[in-house]
Amino acid sequence: MIKVGIVGGTGYTGVELLRILAVHPQVSVHCITSRSEAGLPVAELYPNLRGYFDLSFSEPDPKVLKACDLVFFATPHGVAMRRVPELMAAGVRVVDLSADFRLKDLDTWARWYGMAHESPEWVEQAVYGLPEVARESIRKAQLVANPGCYPTAVQLGFLPLLEQGLVDPGHLIADAKSGASGAGRQGKVGMLHGEIGESFKAYGASGHRHLPEIRQGLTAAAGQPVRVTFVPHLVPMIRGIEATLYAELNDPSAFDRLQALYESRYRDEPFVDVMPAGSHPETRSVRGANVCRMALHRQEDSPVVIVSSVIDNLVKGAAGQAVQNMNIMFGFDEAAGLGAPALLP
Amino acid sequence: MIKVGIVGGTGYTGVELLRILAVHPQVSVHCITSRSEAGLPVAELYPNLRGYFDLSFSEPDPKVLKACDLVFFATPHGVAMRRVPELMAAGVRVVDLSADFRLKDLDTWARWYGMAHESPEWVEQAVYGLPEVARESIRKAQLVANPGCYPTAVQLGFLPLLEQGLVDPGHLIADAKSGASGAGRQGKVGMLHGEIGESFKAYGASGHRHLPEIRQGLTAAAGQPVRVTFVPHLVPMIRGIEATLYAELNDPSAFDRLQALYESRYRDEPFVDVMPAGSHPETRSVRGANVCRMALHRQEDSPVVIVSSVIDNLVKGAAGQAVQNMNIMFGFDEAAGLGAPALLP
Amino acid sequence: MIKVGIVGGTGYTGVELLRILAVHPQVSVHCITSRSEAGLPVAELYPNLRGYFDLSFSEPDPKVLKACDLVFFATPHGVAMRRVPELMAAGVRVVDLSADFRLKDLDTWARWYGMAHESPEWVEQAVYGLPEVARESIRKAQLVANPGCYPTAVQLGFLPLLEQGLVDPGHLIADAKSGASGAGRQGKVGMLHGEIGESFKAYGASGHRHLPEIRQGLTAAAGQPVRVTFVPHLVPMIRGIEATLYAELNDPSAFDRLQALYESRYRDEPFVDVMPAGSHPETRSVRGANVCRMALHRQEDSPVVIVSSVIDNLVKGAAGQAVQNMNIMFGFDEAAGLGAPALLP
Amino acid sequence: MIKVGIVGGTGYTGVELLRILAVHPQVSVHCITSRSEAGLPVAELYPNLRGYFDLSFSEPDPKVLKACDLVFFATPHGVAMRRVPELMAAGVRVVDLSADFRLKDLDTWARWYGMAHESPEWVEQAVYGLPEVARESIRKAQLVANPGCYPTAVQLGFLPLLEQGLVDPGHLIADAKSGASGAGRQGKVGMLHGEIGESFKAYGASGHRHLPEIRQGLTAAAGQPVRVTFVPHLVPMIRGIEATLYAELNDPSAFDRLQALYESRYRDEPFVDVMPAGSHPETRSVRGANVCRMALHRQEDSPVVIVSSVIDNLVKGAAGQAVQNMNIMFGFDEAAGLGAPALLP
Repeated sequence: MIKVGIVGGTGYTGVELLRILAVHPQVSVHCITSRSEAGLPVAELYPNLRGYFDLSFSEPDPKVLKACDLVFFATPHGVAMRRVPELMAAGVRVVDLSADFRLKDLDTWARWYGMAHESPEWVEQAVYGLPEVARESIRKAQLVANPGCYPTAVQLGFLPLLEQGLVDPGHLIADAKSGASGAGRQGKVGMLHGEIGESFKAYGASGHRHLPEIRQGLTAAAGQPVRVTFVPHLVPMIRGIEATLYAELNDPSAFDRLQALYESRYRDEPFVDVMPAGSHPETRSVRGANVCRMALHRQEDSPVVIVSSVIDNLVKGAAGQAVQNMNIMFGFDEAAGLGAPALLP
Repeated sequence: MIKVGIVGGTGYTGVELLRILAVHPQVSVHCITSRSEAGLPVAELYPNLRGYFDLSFSEPDPKVLKACDLVFFATPHGVAMRRVPELMAAGVRVVDLSADFRLKDLDTWARWYGMAHESPEWVEQAVYGLPEVARESIRKAQLVANPGCYPTAVQLGFLPLLEQGLVDPGHLIADAKSGASGAGRQGKVGMLHGEIGESFKAYGASGHRHLPEIRQGLTAAAGQPVRVTFVPHLVPMIRGIEATLYAELNDPSAFDRLQALYESRYRDEPFVDVMPAGSHPETRSVRGANVCRMALHRQEDSPVVIVSSVIDNLVKGAAGQAVQNMNIMFGFDEAAGLGAPALLP
Repeated sequence: MIKVGIVGGTGYTGVELLRILAVHPQVSVHCITSRSEAGLPVAELYPNLRGYFDLSFSEPDPKVLKACDLVFFATPHGVAMRRVPELMAAGVRVVDLSADFRLKDLDTWARWYGMAHESPEWVEQAVYGLPEVARESIRKAQLVANPGCYPTAVQLGFLPLLEQGLVDPGHLIADAKSGASGAGRQGKVGMLHGEIGESFKAYGASGHRHLPEIRQGLTAAAGQPVRVTFVPHLVPMIRGIEATLYAELNDPSAFDRLQALYESRYRDEPFVDVMPAGSHPETRSVRGANVCRMALHRQEDSPVVIVSSVIDNLVKGAAGQAVQNMNIMFGFDEAAGLGAPALLP
Repeated sequence: MIKVGIVGGTGYTGVELLRILAVHPQVSVHCITSRSEAGLPVAELYPNLRGYFDLSFSEPDPKVLKACDLVFFATPHGVAMRRVPELMAAGVRVVDLSADFRLKDLDTWARWYGMAHESPEWVEQAVYGLPEVARESIRKAQLVANPGCYPTAVQLGFLPLLEQGLVDPGHLIADAKSGASGAGRQGKVGMLHGEIGESFKAYGASGHRHLPEIRQGLTAAAGQPVRVTFVPHLVPMIRGIEATLYAELNDPSAFDRLQALYESRYRDEPFVDVMPAGSHPETRSVRGANVCRMALHRQEDSPVVIVSSVIDNLVKGAAGQAVQNMNIMFGFDEAAGLGAPALLP
């Protein structure tokens, strides 16, 4: 039984962490902080948790956090980078769900996030927590940078192609679509039901913060620079990301070997599911579950390989992956707390 | 570990039973039948179950069903009443999620369901499976008639008032609203997303099959005939029922004692949650969970007491309550398999 | 051709006024004000209006407003009551879509709106703009208080019963449901798609501002005090209100005459549509249209008459009715600008 | 005033034609046919049309159709090709909303639609009715093949680039997303609200019937063969298509001239709206309106140009474009009946 703390618990990733940890057999939630809601019982803000947690939101208190074995940061970017060094010094392990420690290049980070990084030394030490790529490093990490939602869906879909050098790294397209919970729980006009409830649009088409994160991961997988175009879209639903990925095979006849390649690449991964070629993964098939499901397609004899990859942005795209990382870090069963099937319909 | 069978597993209550049983520690699903989909792997129809069940749908086979400890019927009405006698004779226990054994009055049943009942003797023996009313009978029952979705939300909301004789039984109104999954998974034009996705309407306002079931339960609670008006509505969402109930207090000043009454009535119930007076239960707070949440209201000094009661129609309104009944029947922990919080957001 | 102004045009009723007036043959929009968006082209905030209006939002300027023949107020309550006297003095006619002039009783208004009224003399002069009740007064009015959305649906549904004294005025129930646009276009967490997109709940069940407005209208129709219980609910859709109304017939056998009564009551009304008894009006059948559609029901031989009444809350429940009132005031064809069918599907 | 007939009027394009024609000043709807609903008043199936049409659905009767000036076919593919020759012979003009006359290559048509074409001579004569490309031919045409929904959004978005030879025709990607009404009004399980109401997925990723239609149009625009990859997706909303288009500029520095190019290409088009570069067109901004809105994007200095293009699939993608074509054919104002702004919110 370990003691965990959650910093910044009023958003959607905060409640999702609690929902998952509520059934985790080896975790006790020691504290959950929120400056704005300090004093409010968690179950008052999130009535689905009535009966599960007696906890109230509290002001962040370093002493309390240092008494934890692990702290999750579910904060806006720029917060974790200031708080993490003190926890590191105290020997606390951290999974940061924000973007603070995801990009290794500090200039890139500064440009996309609009501020200079305040913990460059920990950027270097942080492990980018995509278990399918870095399980062994995660196991030993003190600080894990939990991947972004889009980057998780896009990287898992592209990885086998790039790792094997099967596609032209200069023509990658990732057309991604997300439900509204990805934008968080702030009272913005643009995210009102009346604004987005029965509409669809691209956003960030000229550049989105997840682009450099995707590029960093794909470059590492390819072992050479990649050019990836990434356009996110907003879907009038709450949870779910679908990414349709396009790449050009160097050898079009290689398509026939791809299904076997994908199945073999992910055979031992508990949370990646390669469906039969020609399937169309639905986001509802992963709703509430820590799974990335994908399938391969090609049109006629085109050299373009198409991968459709789906996740629940709050689970495999955030809180679920964070718990998976925690499980790895503490030697728990990697699926502990993550065992229930998706909620369909 | 018991062996259970599911008859008629391709509908929404079928997949919901599987979703719940997938994490139930004492149940093994022995067979799931479907005439139309026989041979199809369950996980092909319901990809959220990939990795959980190796099972395929099979033709209903009495021999296989008789080898079960318990059989769930998730069939259209009129099926269970023909199959149940043979299973009863074989000593198999049954939870019927259809309406076949819910109404004690055979004429009423025949009138609303358009056919004569073929197992009148088992109607008499069947226990109406609302655990909050009949837990002890359920424990010993061989045949449990699992309540309808609307009747569950409406009865639980009205019960304390009627049991205590606090309201006029001649002026009960139940205005209920349901998500689309309540209509099942048949390809009807009227249930297309294009038809109901951004619209709201009443239906069955001149009479709905759940009306006699509600009336039977409320009459028993009141110990005298009741007149209840029940109007269901269709909400453009998938899961969830909200019932707004109106009753007139015999003594308006009694309102102040109602909160305590409700809390006391349901104190020991694991799946009924009385929220503070003045709360507004949301259906999302019970999505995927076997909970009925309710709250009380009154407007100014009106004698009208208002109860808002919410359930997930597929869980506490169907498959979850069926598993709860099974747990009671077999002496399992009543919450086994039903322990996870609702999926919010 | 008249010149109209719109005060407070950034909300949903503002854009809806523009959408309707864009095709009105006798109206030119002279100005549209917004303090927060002054300078912004209307079509930038509302791209559906690109090509229709060259107008930008402007600071409210009394001189400009006084140059109008008619000014619509689409402001939060408390604004119109301060601005209207000056416009009245200048001979400008006003349709106020806010609640400022709806309630004749000043104490009631003060209690529900949390402030003292600053134009009591104009409250007296204002005509409550429900054309089906007050067409002749509207024609001559200088100031029209445009009815609230719920009150429109509820009053039109109850009126024939109360005007004819056919029901017990002490047992009226109005269970009403609205899409999210009724809550306006402010960035409130509670109205995010992520919060309400796949959920249903009652709100204001202990008392809502539209209750006294409904009571005032029904009392006038009945010619005696009424007791009405009104509970609004939030539907995960954008536009539309459905109100299910319950009343007890003094003489249950009168039900058979009700259909004819309703048809006769509304025969000459261009914007009320009585459907055949037993119909279930859908909100989508009035989406974007200035229509109230309704139908009657009864269950078995119950004395309870059930009326289901639907409107588009932004049209017959706000901007459409405002334009209808304007048409009456200026002697235009009452349907000018309001001629297109609802958008279905 | 012309007399028009509609063949196959019970689907979504049928009701949409009626909705538009209800306010068209020069058209009288002479008949609307449906085998399955013959005898049923149109307004009973589509209550939004109550008060607009007295018409009932009728069995298709060649005599009645030949008395029309123009007949719209809103039928499944394979119907129009059998009926059109007789109408052509009778001098009736036809706009076919189905796919029967869209593809010039008969083998391609046969392969994708699974049957041999029965009117090859009329395939040759038919004009592909994209007014932005073929206005003059449409004016004189007796038979117009109304473009598909996806092909309209995709072609309008790509045209200026291909006509000017600015991009590599070998690397075109069209990632398109549609609301559920695009699948029509048949009672298919896969289109139930319960199945798709809160989910997102690709479909037809290995090949969709609109692919050859898109390829034919783009090839004509480019004046050389193109390789286009087209993947459609299903959005949990009713109306609307968004297509995100990717192409590689031959000369990356050309991007800066593209905005002017697009504006100039569509300057005189009443129903194409080029938004400022960097905008994100929303499908709601064209809901119910006959408009294609688009905007251009690029990421950093990438040679990839991104076009986001939106239409209402039932209007500019079907019935609206059909009426636009009719207006051109009969010399009416091209915008007659199509003048109202989109319904937002």
